[in-house]
Amino acid sequence: MGLAMANNLIKAGYDLTVWNRSSDKCQPLVEAGAQAAASPKEVAEQCDIVLAMLADPAAALEVATGEAGIAAGMAQGKGYVDVSTVDAATAQEISRAIKSAGGEYLEAPVSGSKGPAEQGTLIFLTGGDRSLFDRAAPLLDVMGKRSFFLREVGNGAKMKLVVNMVMGNMMAAFAEGLTLAEKAGLSKQDVIDVVGLGAIAAPMFALKGPAMAQRKYATAFPLKHQQKDLRLALELGQEVQQPLPVAAAANELYLQAQSAGHGDADFSAVLEAVLQQ
Amino acid sequence: MGLAMANNLIKAGYDLTVWNRSSDKCQPLVEAGAQAAASPKEVAEQCDIVLAMLADPAAALEVATGEAGIAAGMAQGKGYVDVSTVDAATAQEISRAIKSAGGEYLEAPVSGSKGPAEQGTLIFLTGGDRSLFDRAAPLLDVMGKRSFFLREVGNGAKMKLVVNMVMGNMMAAFAEGLTLAEKAGLSKQDVIDVVGLGAIAAPMFALKGPAMAQRKYATAFPLKHQQKDLRLALELGQEVQQPLPVAAAANELYLQAQSAGHGDADFSAVLEAVLQQ
Amino acid sequence: MGLAMANNLIKAGYDLTVWNRSSDKCQPLVEAGAQAAASPKEVAEQCDIVLAMLADPAAALEVATGEAGIAAGMAQGKGYVDVSTVDAATAQEISRAIKSAGGEYLEAPVSGSKGPAEQGTLIFLTGGDRSLFDRAAPLLDVMGKRSFFLREVGNGAKMKLVVNMVMGNMMAAFAEGLTLAEKAGLSKQDVIDVVGLGAIAAPMFALKGPAMAQRKYATAFPLKHQQKDLRLALELGQEVQQPLPVAAAANELYLQAQSAGHGDADFSAVLEAVLQQ
Amino acid sequence: MGLAMANNLIKAGYDLTVWNRSSDKCQPLVEAGAQAAASPKEVAEQCDIVLAMLADPAAALEVATGEAGIAAGMAQGKGYVDVSTVDAATAQEISRAIKSAGGEYLEAPVSGSKGPAEQGTLIFLTGGDRSLFDRAAPLLDVMGKRSFFLREVGNGAKMKLVVNMVMGNMMAAFAEGLTLAEKAGLSKQDVIDVVGLGAIAAPMFALKGPAMAQRKYATAFPLKHQQKDLRLALELGQEVQQPLPVAAAANELYLQAQSAGHGDADFSAVLEAVLQQ
Repeated sequence: MGLAMANNLIKAGYDLTVWNRSSDKCQPLVEAGAQAAASPKEVAEQCDIVLAMLADPAAALEVATGEAGIAAGMAQGKGYVDVSTVDAATAQEISRAIKSAGGEYLEAPVSGSKGPAEQGTLIFLTGGDRSLFDRAAPLLDVMGKRSFFLREVGNGAKMKLVVNMVMGNMMAAFAEGLTLAEKAGLSKQDVIDVVGLGAIAAPMFALKGPAMAQRKYATAFPLKHQQKDLRLALELGQEVQQPLPVAAAANELYLQAQSAGHGDADFSAVLEAVLQQ
Repeated sequence: MGLAMANNLIKAGYDLTVWNRSSDKCQPLVEAGAQAAASPKEVAEQCDIVLAMLADPAAALEVATGEAGIAAGMAQGKGYVDVSTVDAATAQEISRAIKSAGGEYLEAPVSGSKGPAEQGTLIFLTGGDRSLFDRAAPLLDVMGKRSFFLREVGNGAKMKLVVNMVMGNMMAAFAEGLTLAEKAGLSKQDVIDVVGLGAIAAPMFALKGPAMAQRKYATAFPLKHQQKDLRLALELGQEVQQPLPVAAAANELYLQAQSAGHGDADFSAVLEAVLQQ
Repeated sequence: MGLAMANNLIKAGYDLTVWNRSSDKCQPLVEAGAQAAASPKEVAEQCDIVLAMLADPAAALEVATGEAGIAAGMAQGKGYVDVSTVDAATAQEISRAIKSAGGEYLEAPVSGSKGPAEQGTLIFLTGGDRSLFDRAAPLLDVMGKRSFFLREVGNGAKMKLVVNMVMGNMMAAFAEGLTLAEKAGLSKQDVIDVVGLGAIAAPMFALKGPAMAQRKYATAFPLKHQQKDLRLALELGQEVQQPLPVAAAANELYLQAQSAGHGDADFSAVLEAVLQQ
Repeated sequence: MGLAMANNLIKAGYDLTVWNRSSDKCQPLVEAGAQAAASPKEVAEQCDIVLAMLADPAAALEVATGEAGIAAGMAQGKGYVDVSTVDAATAQEISRAIKSAGGEYLEAPVSGSKGPAEQGTLIFLTGGDRSLFDRAAPLLDVMGKRSFFLREVGNGAKMKLVVNMVMGNMMAAFAEGLTLAEKAGLSKQDVIDVVGLGAIAAPMFALKGPAMAQRKYATAFPLKHQQKDLRLALELGQEVQQPLPVAAAANELYLQAQSAGHGDADFSAVLEAVLQQ
């Protein structure tokens, strides 16, 4: 995803300095006109705004606060925009490191996967320094179709959990609907068609429904990540003392699918858990 | 709804003979060119295809099979299309009465409410005689945007339950998302906006979300009807031995909203049950 | 069960007149001193108090209100005590028939199965005519260890549902505990032993636990009946507008066990549904 | 609880050396014949077997591994029996510290509260060094009625979670039963009486039922601790990939009771959440 996002910035005419743990991954960008740096620190030294897309909270923390990390190259007037998906606590830790070094910080996890990254239609859920958000807005507009500024650091992560919790519930509901329909003598494709015409039509149902009807689950968003997000949303509910009984029931269904070996399949494979019941 | 549907037929140039329990309700249609009949039986005697939109299964049964009912006026070559929402057992009972009288029968419950009825964008979920479906198709096309022929009588009712079960689950999931967001310090309107841009965007969320954010629930589909449909879907699950744990959890939430006095509010008032938890 | 109960009455010195659809089933009782009657009506004509133990609501209704049924032999001063398990509506229908015939009525479903019937340790959950309860008390005391008078007809049936709902939930909880323990590396027998020593020790766990640990489920109370009782308890909840989210989750688990083919096994086979998840 | 347990050991003739953060808490024991020590380390230096009862994992860790802690006074031939309730990870950390110092370790959380501690009827759920379990057995027998040796360190903690999960579920089921009964026109006391006579009779129902019927919840085991144990059991389920749908539903009910302000009441106050639904 990082590659697609960087490409869109180059195409839009921005000067890029790039770094990746595996330097050959930077090659296509260098060929397209970007400069290569030797470390995150060097990127920070040479740029006003640093963007990072990393795989998980541990990697995000290491790149931001490690020895030759971004914080080490930060200075007054510079800003760090982290578009990785990390938990609120990690985002706050990175924020402290960047701000101690004089820079500004914005967590900016994205909603959307590989396709939207290539088409420049991502959604950014940001929290942190408002002035950095304003400065980075033209860049975000190149890579995405909409950016939300949600105030404090951590709110981007929380918004992503909320939205993914709703998504996980919807997929579980859809899976129950398809299964009930089939057991009751209806066609799954008819359900998909009827759902697609009314008030509950959602792109996700149209996109994944036909493959689900054939019990095929090519992975776009792994089921184990959906289950993790449901679990984290329930933990957030615990933290703020909000019961979420429907999400709790859905979470058990995803856990069942995972324990049956579908963790690496697409999250639409929750259908397998419903079928197994 | 019946009035809006009949009006669309008149506008499309069809000759209508109309009847209503309260004869003054026919007045606007008569003024628009329809003929008034004295009973359902008389409508059946004068028309090739009879359409009915009734409030509940009891009314549908009475109008179809009562003393001066439609079956009494049926004959070979005539057909009865019942667009009311009735359960599968009632539809089968009406079917038997019509077919004993020599006619053809089509259950055709609609997906969509008053707005789509006026705009002619309803969806018909039909089951019964295929030849009647083919003959009635031009009429259904005037009143709706799509008709599904689902084979046996009862399948229209079942499809409606399946779709409404998915809808009820989605609304409960959305309500949990809005509540979790607010408790976690996010804005409900931001959730609505983010949801509206991605793979889970559904017209229902856009339509009802902003009012829900203000805890307003102007009734389009009463919560008690949504709860009833969830209950009936669970009973269908019982009948075909299909567990539906997420729907069961959602049903309890709607029941809670209903017992707290929100049964006549819009079904989006399930949010009140989540807030109360 | 009826045989064991009647035997206890004979042993206690009561004069019995007996009837059974299959007359050979009365033979042991006749040999023990009872008189045989040709119909339920004849039993009613010859006795002051008539007791009946029937398999299901349909049989109970037929024997009470059929052509040569008990109501036909009822008269002022006589009473009918029905110890069968029937729903509240059936009990009320039988009550009306008996009282129209001048008799008194008591529904008296039992808690307890074959063992307690033989040992005379059943529990009677009665509703109906208080004066009949008082007159029948010595008989109930012979067959059981305790009788409850719960006022209106229907309350016996409701109490039985409530108790069986709690029982079904407890067994599901126990099954989840055993499964979690085993997956976490503990021994199921250790769980059974620890549970048996503390505040949650219940005879049911001690009785069924060791067999469950070996996945053996010799039927004492069929799983399909437990699932039916949970379903009926949820319907009662619906009727009185009381959400029951834990019972709803347990019900789905029993439904899953049933759909996997364990309906005729003991209700402790709900463990198989947990293991399958 | 520690006081009651120590008293039982003194009464049984054991020589005790005691320490408490607040030294005045040791006074009654010193008056009864115990010697006072200045630190956990000093207790360890003077005794062969050290017992500790601490409030939470943080206190258990500090007392065991802190500067003047037990590990600092450990030596070959000595053993440490921690009867506090700590999580498996903390127990393992303490175990490593004690064993590095040459001692043996036994986690031994108790099932039972103040009453059983005074009466010497606790249940010990132990894991760790078998030889220490054998040596400590006479002491455990003085303080409790039964001790289980569950092999690895951590298993005592897991067993306690499993049992408390079953307990939390049972109490939630009982609360749903009491509420359904009352709404259906039955008496809560009758439910308590009927439950108390049959296969599901458990001391907990008899002990807490009558107070619950009056909505009184004098705290023996705080609701927030019950909710925490349900949450930890669900996390254990997550870890070993075991869905627990009934426990998940019960957990949401306790969370609801807690968010309504009943966290410090007895866990039987889950009834308030059911009543509020």
